[in-house]
Amino acid sequence: MEGFFAPDDRLVLLAHGRFPDHAKTAVGVLRYGEADVVAVLDRERAGTRVADHAPGLPDAPVVASVDEVAGDADALVVGIAPSGGAFEAAWRPDVRTALEAGWDVVAGLHDSLAEDSEFAALADSHGGSIHDVREPPADLPLGTGAAADADAHVVLTVGTDASVGKMTTAVELVRAARERGVDAALVPTGQTGILVAGWGVAIDRVPADFVSGVVEQMVLERAPDHDLLVVEGQGSIGHPAYSADAVGILHGAGADDLVLVHDPVRETLTGFDAFPVPDPATSVDLYESVAAPVHPSKVAAGALDTSVAPSDATARDWLDEYESALGEPATDPVRFGADVLLEHLGAGSA
Amino acid sequence: MEGFFAPDDRLVLLAHGRFPDHAKTAVGVLRYGEADVVAVLDRERAGTRVADHAPGLPDAPVVASVDEVAGDADALVVGIAPSGGAFEAAWRPDVRTALEAGWDVVAGLHDSLAEDSEFAALADSHGGSIHDVREPPADLPLGTGAAADADAHVVLTVGTDASVGKMTTAVELVRAARERGVDAALVPTGQTGILVAGWGVAIDRVPADFVSGVVEQMVLERAPDHDLLVVEGQGSIGHPAYSADAVGILHGAGADDLVLVHDPVRETLTGFDAFPVPDPATSVDLYESVAAPVHPSKVAAGALDTSVAPSDATARDWLDEYESALGEPATDPVRFGADVLLEHLGAGSA
Repeated sequence: MEGFFAPDDRLVLLAHGRFPDHAKTAVGVLRYGEADVVAVLDRERAGTRVADHAPGLPDAPVVASVDEVAGDADALVVGIAPSGGAFEAAWRPDVRTALEAGWDVVAGLHDSLAEDSEFAALADSHGGSIHDVREPPADLPLGTGAAADADAHVVLTVGTDASVGKMTTAVELVRAARERGVDAALVPTGQTGILVAGWGVAIDRVPADFVSGVVEQMVLERAPDHDLLVVEGQGSIGHPAYSADAVGILHGAGADDLVLVHDPVRETLTGFDAFPVPDPATSVDLYESVAAPVHPSKVAAGALDTSVAPSDATARDWLDEYESALGEPATDPVRFGADVLLEHLGAGSA
Repeated sequence: MEGFFAPDDRLVLLAHGRFPDHAKTAVGVLRYGEADVVAVLDRERAGTRVADHAPGLPDAPVVASVDEVAGDADALVVGIAPSGGAFEAAWRPDVRTALEAGWDVVAGLHDSLAEDSEFAALADSHGGSIHDVREPPADLPLGTGAAADADAHVVLTVGTDASVGKMTTAVELVRAARERGVDAALVPTGQTGILVAGWGVAIDRVPADFVSGVVEQMVLERAPDHDLLVVEGQGSIGHPAYSADAVGILHGAGADDLVLVHDPVRETLTGFDAFPVPDPATSVDLYESVAAPVHPSKVAAGALDTSVAPSDATARDWLDEYESALGEPATDPVRFGADVLLEHLGAGSA
């Protein structure tokens, strides 16, 4: 599977009016991406720097438009996704200028930029490419269960709900593994993960018959080059809307280990208030029993979102409780790092 | 959701070279469809009648081309789907003639006939429509779990494997219910079911995020007009390729009762020889436990494919064993009818 950009590419992130609080994708690319971010576009914050808004991130200038980016870049990445995923007309001049400079344009919107006739013509005449990363590849394979035999240790993040930290946990696991010298890679299944890693397939747009097959193909393609693959999960197994994504990925990944991601203060499913969040032990049973007929994947560790805990001590109390429920070690990968999980996942050493 | 044809339409079924043994869709439309089949096209069997090949079906002449159909019709239905779902050039004259006569053309192929420029122009100028029934509708909803409150008794057929008789069981249940005076309707999720009922959505082509939502929408739309809805299931919950379909439908249908369909002599999953067919009791546990967080659907009955049993006595032995495994009544709806299931499903009386 071809990538959308390379690890040493120089990126410009479009985040007009929304950086950093409503630019989850841009922040993810800054925090976790391998490519070099040379500027962020936000005309409301032009003249500031990333460090002024989000001190933990790699620094870069915030400018008003592509015209004001100093030096050259390889790609403009649309790092915001408004509700509905529509392309906004106010972004058009930046996309136009980027394409005229011969850059690629990479976007995870619902609207296809490659099908925009002006953009397509500009890309054609200036040699850039337009990548709509949410668009599934044309040739989709059926699952066969073969990822169970992949030549790498495969970990999949699963959740008690959607939007609970499966992507964050996956990228933190990859980062912690690399810091230990383990050759680890992310297998991205959603737009932010794809823009972090520069490749991947947005599973939510893949037709039901091919969900497991696409994940299996990604695992089998990347396994020979790495010792640890961390597959980004989507949705949740007992969810009124997103269960097809979760179960298809579960069977496609053929994971050795599952990491169950949970939010200890969330009472009902995000956006689905009529449904309580299943308790962690029930979720463990569901994931393991449904995985078993294809490949026996076990929940070997937990990840907890303790961001609202008032102190590390409270967060540790929550983790203790979560570990008891799972019978497995757990961490908050953002607050305490993912390192504690790695040895337990059988992937701790180079 | 608009239908592809109406119950009183007159249909011509295209099944060149394959009727009846390799024309599952055409046979399904003849056996279960409400519309009137006025002719079958099979140039290798022209001059015969349906009754010569398949005595149990409603009779109709088999002719070589649309030109030879006596009288008028409302639609040409492509009643065969070659592996891969490609349109064959040899069918082009019949589609052309049908469109020139102002008929609709309905096909469940992978290739889109509506996107064929010659066919599109003919439909335009003669007033017919082209329906590619495998193409999902443009506006897809997210699931909300609302089908659980549908104003009808909802039954879903689920299976221990793909291609195990979920569609047949569903249509036999609808037929048996109607014979008892129950106002029952099929909710079709695959191409044959869609061509039998004249409406529906092919779930295998629906993007993962919308599988449950599409099924929920179909149930909610039809529930006010019927007392019993039987949703046609797809795939299987512990399947390396088709689990996303199965689980998305399970959560979208919000069924009161599940009917588990099984083949007692099948040892490995069809087309996936490395995987044993899960035993029925395990399948019951998986479907019920995964359904529970959204809606508590219970396996209330079983359907068994006893077609290879040498006698009714053997078939009854197999059914006894299956009933013991389920702890629920079971039948072979083709051999013994579906009537025995109806009362148990709480949907037996008008």
